Amino acid sequence: MPTRDQVHYFGAGPAPLPTPVLEEASKVILNYNDSGIGITEISHRSADANAILAQTKNALRQLLDIPESDGPDGYEILFLQGGGSGEFSAIVYNLVAAWVGAKVKEVGDDRIAEELRKMRLDYLVTGSWSLKASQEAARLVGSEHVNVALDSRKFREGKFGAIPDKSNWKISASREDVALTYYCDNETVDGVEFPAGSPSDLPNLVGDMSSNFLSRKVDVRKHAAIFGGAQKNVGTTGITIAIISNRFLPPNAEYAKPDLLRKLGLGVAPVVLDYPTIAKNNSLYNTLPIFDVWIAGQVMQRLVDRGPQQQPRIATQEAESDKKANLLYSVLDASPDIYRVVPEKEARSRMNICFRVKGGDDAAEKAFVKGAEAKGLLGIKGHRSVGGMRISNYNAVPVVAVEKLVSYLQDFAKSQ
Amino acid sequence: MPTRDQVHYFGAGPAPLPTPVLEEASKVILNYNDSGIGITEISHRSADANAILAQTKNALRQLLDIPESDGPDGYEILFLQGGGSGEFSAIVYNLVAAWVGAKVKEVGDDRIAEELRKMRLDYLVTGSWSLKASQEAARLVGSEHVNVALDSRKFREGKFGAIPDKSNWKISASREDVALTYYCDNETVDGVEFPAGSPSDLPNLVGDMSSNFLSRKVDVRKHAAIFGGAQKNVGTTGITIAIISNRFLPPNAEYAKPDLLRKLGLGVAPVVLDYPTIAKNNSLYNTLPIFDVWIAGQVMQRLVDRGPQQQPRIATQEAESDKKANLLYSVLDASPDIYRVVPEKEARSRMNICFRVKGGDDAAEKAFVKGAEAKGLLGIKGHRSVGGMRISNYNAVPVVAVEKLVSYLQDFAKSQ
Repeated sequence: MPTRDQVHYFGAGPAPLPTPVLEEASKVILNYNDSGIGITEISHRSADANAILAQTKNALRQLLDIPESDGPDGYEILFLQGGGSGEFSAIVYNLVAAWVGAKVKEVGDDRIAEELRKMRLDYLVTGSWSLKASQEAARLVGSEHVNVALDSRKFREGKFGAIPDKSNWKISASREDVALTYYCDNETVDGVEFPAGSPSDLPNLVGDMSSNFLSRKVDVRKHAAIFGGAQKNVGTTGITIAIISNRFLPPNAEYAKPDLLRKLGLGVAPVVLDYPTIAKNNSLYNTLPIFDVWIAGQVMQRLVDRGPQQQPRIATQEAESDKKANLLYSVLDASPDIYRVVPEKEARSRMNICFRVKGGDDAAEKAFVKGAEAKGLLGIKGHRSVGGMRISNYNAVPVVAVEKLVSYLQDFAKSQ
Repeated sequence: MPTRDQVHYFGAGPAPLPTPVLEEASKVILNYNDSGIGITEISHRSADANAILAQTKNALRQLLDIPESDGPDGYEILFLQGGGSGEFSAIVYNLVAAWVGAKVKEVGDDRIAEELRKMRLDYLVTGSWSLKASQEAARLVGSEHVNVALDSRKFREGKFGAIPDKSNWKISASREDVALTYYCDNETVDGVEFPAGSPSDLPNLVGDMSSNFLSRKVDVRKHAAIFGGAQKNVGTTGITIAIISNRFLPPNAEYAKPDLLRKLGLGVAPVVLDYPTIAKNNSLYNTLPIFDVWIAGQVMQRLVDRGPQQQPRIATQEAESDKKANLLYSVLDASPDIYRVVPEKEARSRMNICFRVKGGDDAAEKAFVKGAEAKGLLGIKGHRSVGGMRISNYNAVPVVAVEKLVSYLQDFAKSQ
């Protein structure tokens, strides 16, 4: 019957949260802001809820230096439901509606069907999640519009684990045909992560940052949209955060109407995933899980408080994340007979550290997990689809937890 | 700075939760089941999470007597995200895909476009939410397929507040053309509720029970689907519960493929709202907010425990809900010079009691709210779109709260 401080949890998500945030949560769940009403009970339209929303957005802007402007250079922060998987769909519905809307303006109703044939959604597939996202795009708009510009498995005997450089990407030739260019910044299952700042200079760039959000600086301005489920570095399952360029929201963008989209054989977004509707209503079109926003806001405020004075205030956390990841990889690399990191060196994730024990020997891996659990080091098994070990090094995993795990890695290696 | 027991909250949703459930929540959020890990942190694929899911489904089956069978007579319980508004869309995507799939089997690919012209979605519009649902259906499949079989405003000078009986409903003539018949059992904004057991005997009946779920018996077997956001009687914002007849799930139903749906000019569901996918994965296709499921499970188990020994075990709660509502309406009716209940008597909601004070006089209504708040009676203002007062009588509102409110209603009336 361990207590909270007797275990260290390295699960891949839902992920650990800072204990002080959960301690505060355990209070506000009964009585928020001395109102006599708990935070899960208050109205999403109350003054308290609005203050929580505003504080959370403000903290996020400071952490990632998100441009705040009503004009086309600004970015809107949306809170949605449905997780990263919901955004696989949302981003397609919305950016395609924006692309078709702009094209109709340009060529008129008569020629839109013809022009549509050229539309492309470029996907950089580097792991299980970007693969799923590309498959969802094909469901919603038809595979003829989906260009898998990179399938990294082709570079590594059918398995994920590498991120070949840009010279290997088969980007659509004409930028103006591209409704979106999609990548998953960090692949949770496969343990690969794009180098910081890559990809960039691609049309209508969309980054899924579900599992490395708020772990490093991001050049928001190079993106049309960035999204992430909250349940890794940011908070709890229940909300998804999307950062959208105003260029893809009214009045700068005029989305094609559902009637036209259907006529053209494209999917139509459910209203709860329609970015213009959610933006217009400050994420309160329908009932938003305010408790989950509050958790994210608390987590973000802690990062703001420990960050540097200037934006992006995530810089301090980035240094810590790098340090923890480097520590783990260096220990793994130091015992090559015992541990083998799965992805290639250049593509290693700082968030999800995937490795095999003794070449994937079943008994050895079971013994490794058992020994870890005996020391209160939990959640280190790899995703069921790939096996092996996975240590998730999210923000709420303290340095001391990583140090304990490092000791265990060293002791286990010695014992073999 | 009131404490929890100094206030009584009558908000329309998010709604109050039983204090013992929140007290337990405040513990498990730090350490669930002596694992050393909090409930928002545990994996949705862990044994603990699976047990929570199973317990919650089992309690719900007992409360509403939901048939459990793998065959076409059984019903599946799904947990989704996106709230009631998300289900406005989901129900259309799914039941239309099932209708088209069945029709293709019958008439073949060649004649499906022709047959599709006959497809109808019948909507009984009795308030703000069913109106929104009908509008969403038109967005997704085209208004030519949406038959507003009832718009109750036509019976009451343009305003909601009545539920004319079946003889006034313009149901589509041919049952086999109807992909779904939609109603909202209780309209939260307008305070109207269908009489128990009505509507029924309509093809592919779908009930939105977001705001009266688990407040009375429901003949599940008469429905194709029932859904509800959890944040009224059941739990917190973050999960939506859908009860789907196996007749609308594989292997009993074969959904039309996305390619065909797009070709036919119909919307395509995002994968997170695709019922067959969610059902096949026991609601764990993507990360499910397990904390919210746990809350719902706790609330349901309390109802099971106080219910009769036989199903439906919701019977005890139903009696209490009726009693509380009757008490409130009788006090309002006793002072007709002061209070006027907005909806017609036959259509009055047991959950959301909407009334005006002194004919809607602004000063009187403000004084009424102020006086209530001074006594710790909170959340009684009507929806911003209709004004007036609204007392929400959800399950977690204790009898003692209603009694205090009744005293206040009487005192206020006397003081005028």
